Amino acid sequence: MGVEKKEKSQPKENKVSRRGFIAAAVAGLAVGGAAGFGLSRLITPAAPPTLRQVEDIIKQRNLQPAHVVSALKTYVPGGMPDEFLMFSSGGHSGQVMVIGVPSMRIYRIIAVFTPEPWQGYGYGDVKTMKLLEKGSNGIRFLTCGDTHHPEISRTNAEYDGEWLFIGDKLNARKAAISLKDFETKDIVKLPNTQTQHGGACATPNTEYVACGSQFAAPWEPGKGYKPGKTYVKLTEQNFKEYFRGTTTFLRFDRKRGKFDLANSFQIELPPYMQDLEIAGWGPSDGWAFLNSINTELAIGGVLEGRPPLEIAASQNDFDYLHIINWKKAEQVVRQGKAKEMNGIKVITLETAIKEGILFFAPEPKSPHGCDITASGRYIVIGGKLEPLVTVYDIEKIKRAIADQRFQGEDPYGVPVLRFEDVKAAQIEVGLGPLHDEFDDKGHGYVSCFISNEVVKYTLGPPDYTGDKPFQVVDRIPIHYNIGHLATPESNSPTPKGKYLVALNKWSVDRFMNVGPLLPQNFQLIDISGEKMQLLYDMPIGIGEPHYAKMISADKVKPISVYELGTDPETFQRHAKYVEGKVGVERRQEDGRWVTEVWMTEVRSTITPDIIRCKQGDLLRLHITNIETTKDATHAFAVAEYNIMASLEPGETATVEFVADKPGVYAFYCVEFCSPLHLEMAGWLEVEPA
Amino acid sequence: MGVEKKEKSQPKENKVSRRGFIAAAVAGLAVGGAAGFGLSRLITPAAPPTLRQVEDIIKQRNLQPAHVVSALKTYVPGGMPDEFLMFSSGGHSGQVMVIGVPSMRIYRIIAVFTPEPWQGYGYGDVKTMKLLEKGSNGIRFLTCGDTHHPEISRTNAEYDGEWLFIGDKLNARKAAISLKDFETKDIVKLPNTQTQHGGACATPNTEYVACGSQFAAPWEPGKGYKPGKTYVKLTEQNFKEYFRGTTTFLRFDRKRGKFDLANSFQIELPPYMQDLEIAGWGPSDGWAFLNSINTELAIGGVLEGRPPLEIAASQNDFDYLHIINWKKAEQVVRQGKAKEMNGIKVITLETAIKEGILFFAPEPKSPHGCDITASGRYIVIGGKLEPLVTVYDIEKIKRAIADQRFQGEDPYGVPVLRFEDVKAAQIEVGLGPLHDEFDDKGHGYVSCFISNEVVKYTLGPPDYTGDKPFQVVDRIPIHYNIGHLATPESNSPTPKGKYLVALNKWSVDRFMNVGPLLPQNFQLIDISGEKMQLLYDMPIGIGEPHYAKMISADKVKPISVYELGTDPETFQRHAKYVEGKVGVERRQEDGRWVTEVWMTEVRSTITPDIIRCKQGDLLRLHITNIETTKDATHAFAVAEYNIMASLEPGETATVEFVADKPGVYAFYCVEFCSPLHLEMAGWLEVEPA
Repeated sequence: MGVEKKEKSQPKENKVSRRGFIAAAVAGLAVGGAAGFGLSRLITPAAPPTLRQVEDIIKQRNLQPAHVVSALKTYVPGGMPDEFLMFSSGGHSGQVMVIGVPSMRIYRIIAVFTPEPWQGYGYGDVKTMKLLEKGSNGIRFLTCGDTHHPEISRTNAEYDGEWLFIGDKLNARKAAISLKDFETKDIVKLPNTQTQHGGACATPNTEYVACGSQFAAPWEPGKGYKPGKTYVKLTEQNFKEYFRGTTTFLRFDRKRGKFDLANSFQIELPPYMQDLEIAGWGPSDGWAFLNSINTELAIGGVLEGRPPLEIAASQNDFDYLHIINWKKAEQVVRQGKAKEMNGIKVITLETAIKEGILFFAPEPKSPHGCDITASGRYIVIGGKLEPLVTVYDIEKIKRAIADQRFQGEDPYGVPVLRFEDVKAAQIEVGLGPLHDEFDDKGHGYVSCFISNEVVKYTLGPPDYTGDKPFQVVDRIPIHYNIGHLATPESNSPTPKGKYLVALNKWSVDRFMNVGPLLPQNFQLIDISGEKMQLLYDMPIGIGEPHYAKMISADKVKPISVYELGTDPETFQRHAKYVEGKVGVERRQEDGRWVTEVWMTEVRSTITPDIIRCKQGDLLRLHITNIETTKDATHAFAVAEYNIMASLEPGETATVEFVADKPGVYAFYCVEFCSPLHLEMAGWLEVEPA
Repeated sequence: MGVEKKEKSQPKENKVSRRGFIAAAVAGLAVGGAAGFGLSRLITPAAPPTLRQVEDIIKQRNLQPAHVVSALKTYVPGGMPDEFLMFSSGGHSGQVMVIGVPSMRIYRIIAVFTPEPWQGYGYGDVKTMKLLEKGSNGIRFLTCGDTHHPEISRTNAEYDGEWLFIGDKLNARKAAISLKDFETKDIVKLPNTQTQHGGACATPNTEYVACGSQFAAPWEPGKGYKPGKTYVKLTEQNFKEYFRGTTTFLRFDRKRGKFDLANSFQIELPPYMQDLEIAGWGPSDGWAFLNSINTELAIGGVLEGRPPLEIAASQNDFDYLHIINWKKAEQVVRQGKAKEMNGIKVITLETAIKEGILFFAPEPKSPHGCDITASGRYIVIGGKLEPLVTVYDIEKIKRAIADQRFQGEDPYGVPVLRFEDVKAAQIEVGLGPLHDEFDDKGHGYVSCFISNEVVKYTLGPPDYTGDKPFQVVDRIPIHYNIGHLATPESNSPTPKGKYLVALNKWSVDRFMNVGPLLPQNFQLIDISGEKMQLLYDMPIGIGEPHYAKMISADKVKPISVYELGTDPETFQRHAKYVEGKVGVERRQEDGRWVTEVWMTEVRSTITPDIIRCKQGDLLRLHITNIETTKDATHAFAVAEYNIMASLEPGETATVEFVADKPGVYAFYCVEFCSPLHLEMAGWLEVEPA
C-alpha cells in the first residue's frame, strides 16, 4: 500500500520549544474572557490558579504536550454549549444517544425500541404502550431492537434539526423522534420485510424515509411476507425463488409526526443482503443508492454439507450497487402500477425493471457504506473486502442509463451497468474500508476496520478543485476496530468539517477493565487542519453505538416545557385534560368497572393522594404535571404494580392498568424534585372483590 | 446564617500574574513524560503543539484560567486509568452506572432491575429470566425498579471492591452485582416490606446487607405483609395499628453470590417512613443507625379532609434516629426468639424492645443522610428541614443506653434517649442539608439542597484533631438542587479525599437543552486543597442518579474473559457445555417437543447456521462463545421473536423460547465483531404444526 508513516510527515512548524509553547499559552490566557451565562457565572470559580498548581498538575498527571492541547480543545465549561450534537445509535440497546461534541458528554438517552422506566416509556403510560404495540409485528409485543443508522430530517437536502429517524435491524422497523422534545413519536413495522440494516435515509425534503432490507424474507408469491404466517421451506432453490428483499419509501407526515403507510411504497428486490441506502440531491436528486452483499445467494447450512454463510457470501468479486429512480417509482405508484401487499403499495421487481426504476452497477466485493459527497455528484462505497474506496459519478450513471449501456442482467433480469462506465475513481486506502464521510473542503475520510485507521483523501471536482483529486493525503491510526465514522453534517450539501468521531468496537488496553463486556468507544479527532489529530477517547458502556449523525447544535431547537395539559404525542391539548380538575370517578363501562382519576403533580404534592378502588377495576389515571418551570419533571410509580410514568412540566399523560391484586400500595413521585420529594406520595387502596 | 460569600474568601496566593502562570506551565510540560502503555502509545499523536495552536484554542474557546486548570486536571488520555471508579445508582432507570473519576466518563451501565437487551438481560437468556422472575414479587414479573443507594462489600469495614449492592425503592428489593464481571447475580424481594429507600449498607465483613423500609406496609397481625394478599383498609387508626416498617439484615453468601433468606433476619418497626441506614465499625461496631421521617404517622387524604402528606409529615420538630444493636439481634434470632413470617425470621417490635435491640434518639425534623465518620465514632445526620448537621457520638449513645437514661418512649414503647445525652455537636451549615461525606483529613462535607452549596466543616477527635472542631471552614456554590454527594471511600475507616462529586437534580442553564426531560448532572469538585474548586460539569441523561459510591480503581479486579464454557451465574462450567459439541437434537420431554441445540459463536460463524424445528417446540439453545480473546463478545438475536443474548468470551448461555409461530427467521450476531460480522448469521426454520 506504500503508505508513509504519520511520524515521518510531521510538518516542521510543529517542532517548537516548550518555552515557546508556554509563551503562547500566556498570550492565550490574556484574551480568555468570562465564560458562561446567567447563573453559571456565579459558579465558575473566580480564583486564577497558582504557579505551583499548573506545574504540579502536568507533572503529577504525566501529561504530554499533545494531551494539554487535547484537554483544552475538549473541555466545555458548565454553562457553555457544545458546538455539535451527535445522535448515535445505541445498537442492540434499541435506543439513541445524544452526545455533545467536543465535550463528548452524554446529554440524553432516547428510548425508542426498548421500554425505559426513567422516561416512563412502556410502563403503563398509554401513549407509549400504544406506540410500542403499534410498532410491534402483530405476533408479539416487541421490547427490543437493533438500531444502526440514524438520519436527521432534511429541507433542501440540508439537515434541519426537526426530526430524527432510526431503524431496527432485528425486526425491520423504523422510528421517528421529535427533536422538539426528544421523544419517540412513531414506530412502524415495514411490511413484507423481516430485517433491515437499521438504517434510514431521508429524501431531500423528507418526503420519504427510505431503507433497504437486510436478510431477505420468505414471500408468498404475490402476497409478500407476513410475520408468523409466511412459511417457505428453506432450500437454496426456494431461497432464490421465494425469498425477497425490499426497499421501502416510507412517507413521513412532519406535521403529525407519523409515518403514512397508505402513501408509502415499496420496491421488491432480489434476495441479496441489501445494506445501506442514501437518497441524493443536486445532480443525484431523485435517485437513491443501496449497496448489497451476498449476491451469491448463500443460505449457509454447515451441518447440511454447505459452506458457512460468511465464506459462501464472499465469493464474488463484485456485488451490486442498487440504483433506484425513486421519483419515477413515485410516478409509477401514482399511475396505479403498484400492487397492494400487507398494507403497502409494492412495485414488483418485474415492474421496477420494466419501468426503468432499478439498475445495478458492480461494486467491489461485499461493500459497506454508501455515501454522497456535498455536491451530490459522487456516490462513495467502502470496499470492506477490497482495500479500495470506489467513487461513482451520477452524471456517468445517468448518461449510461440514458444510453442503455449495460453489461447484461442479473439473474432476476435487473440491468447491470458497466463498472468502467459509471466509476469516477478508485482510491487505495487501507484494509477493510467500511464507511466514508466528508468535510467542508472536499475531502473524504474512510474508516478502515482491519488496518485500524482513518484515511483522508481528496475528492474530485466540484467537491475538491485542487490538482490532485482522489489521492490519499493523510492517515491516522485508530485505537482498534473502527466501524463507522461521523463528521458534522456529512452526506448533505454542507458538511461542516472540524471534527471526526471514530466509532470503535474494542476496548483493548485503551480503557479500564469493567468486566468481560467491555465498552465500545469513540475517538474524537480534530480534522480542522491538514493533519488529523486525536483529541479524546470516550468509552460507551451503554450499548453498541453503530453510527452517528452530527449536527450544528444551534439547528436543534427543543422546547423546555409543554403548554399546560399537553399530550406529547400530538403536542396538542390532551383529550382528558380539564384545567383544575382533580378527583376520582367510578363507573361501569361496557360491563367493566372503571375508576378514572384526574390527578395533578406539583412540588411536593400528588392530588389526590389516596385512590380507593375495587379489585378488578380498570384504573385510568390522567396525570398532569402542572409545573411551568423548566426542569420541574415529576414522575409517578406504583409499588408492586410495575407502573412508572415520567411527566415533564405541563404534560398530561394517561396511565392505565388493572387493579388485579388487593392491598394498599404506595405511589410516589420518582423524580427527586424538591426538599419534600420524599413526602410526595400517596396510597392506592384496592379493596378485595 | 451569616455566611461569607466565596468571592470574599479567596486567599491572596491565588492572585498570580498570567506570566507567572505560564512560566509554571512551561516547567510542567518539561516534566510530562510519555503516557499510555502497549498499543495506546502508538496512537497518541507525537507532534507537539504549535505556539499559534495553544494561543488560538484558549482565545477561540474563551477559556478562563480556572478552566485551563480544570481541563488539565480532568483529561484522562486513552490508555491511562482513572483514579477512582464511581458506582452511581440510576434512579428509576433501575440500573447502575460505572463512571471513571476524574474523567467523568461512563464505562458501563449494569442492568439490574430493568431488562436490557445490549447485555442480553431478560430477553430469553435463561439465567437472567430466572433472576428477574425470582427477584419479582410473586404477583407479576417486575421489569422496573428505583435504585438509590449503592454499597460496596466490606472487609474489616473497608470497601474491598468485590461486590456491589443496590436496592429498589419501588418494590423493596435488593440486588447483588459481582465486580468480577460487573453482572447482577442475585435479586431478592424483602419479605414483609413493600418499599424501601433503595438503600443498602454492609456490616463490616459483609455478614449482612441491611436496609430499612420506606413507606410502611399493611401487616396482618402475626403474619406480616404479602404482596397482592394483605389488605387492611387505609384509615389513620389502621395505619398506626396494622402498618409496619422493617429493617432487614440480609445474609450474603459471598462465595455463591446469593442472598440467604434462611439465615437473614428482620426487625419489625413502627410505621414511620424509615430512611437511610448504615452499620458502624470500630467503636460503633455491632450497631446500625437508621433515620426516619413522618413520625407524625400521616397518611394524606386531601380529598377526604386531611392535610396533604408532605405538610402533615413535617409537623414534629424531631423525628427518631433508630439505633439498632444488630449483633444482639443476631443472638436473639439464634436463641429462637424470632418468628418466621413469609420466609424470614422476624424480631417483633415487642421482642426488639424487650431484648434491648432497638432505641430511638431525637433527630431534627425530617432528616436525611445517615453517615459515619472514619473513626466509627460519629453518626452524622442532615437536617433537611433544619439548617443543621447533627452529630451523634456512639460513646455517648452506648453510655446512655448502659445507664438506661431515657426521656421516655415512643407510642410503640421504644425507649427514646435524651438528645443532649447523645449529641456530640450541631453545626449550622446552610439550607436543606441533605447528606454528609468525609475526607481523609477529618472534614465533613454536606450537600445543601436549598441553598445550593457544599459546605465543608471540621469533625471532632479522633477524626479531626485541630483546635476548631465542628466548624464550617469552606463552602462552594453548586449549580442547582444538589441531592447527595460522594467522596471516595467515605463512610469507611479510610476515606480517600481528593474529589467530591455533587449529584445535582436540575439542568437550568448549565447544560444544553435536550427537551423537557433534562439531564440530572454531576459536578466534580477538587477537595485536595483547603478551598474546594469546581473541576467539571457532567450531564447524566440516562436516569436519575441518586447516590454514588467511589472506590480506588485498583481495588476492583474484574476478569477479561471467562474460562471456556463458563456459566456466569456461578462462574462454574455451564451444566450443558460440552467441549466441541455442535448439533440439533429433537425429542419429547414430559409430553412436549423440545429442540435442543448446542451452538458456538466465533468470528465470523454461528454453528449451526440453520436450525429446523416444528411449530410449538420448546427451543433450548446452549450457546458458547468459544473466543478466548478479551473484547471478543458475540451476541445472538432472532428476528421477530424478541430474543437477544450477549455472550462474552468463554461464556455459555442457555436461551429458551417457544417456536410458537411458523416461518423462516434470521438470527445473527448483534455485536459488531469482525469484518464479516454482517455475514455472521443463520436461519431458524419453524415448520407449521
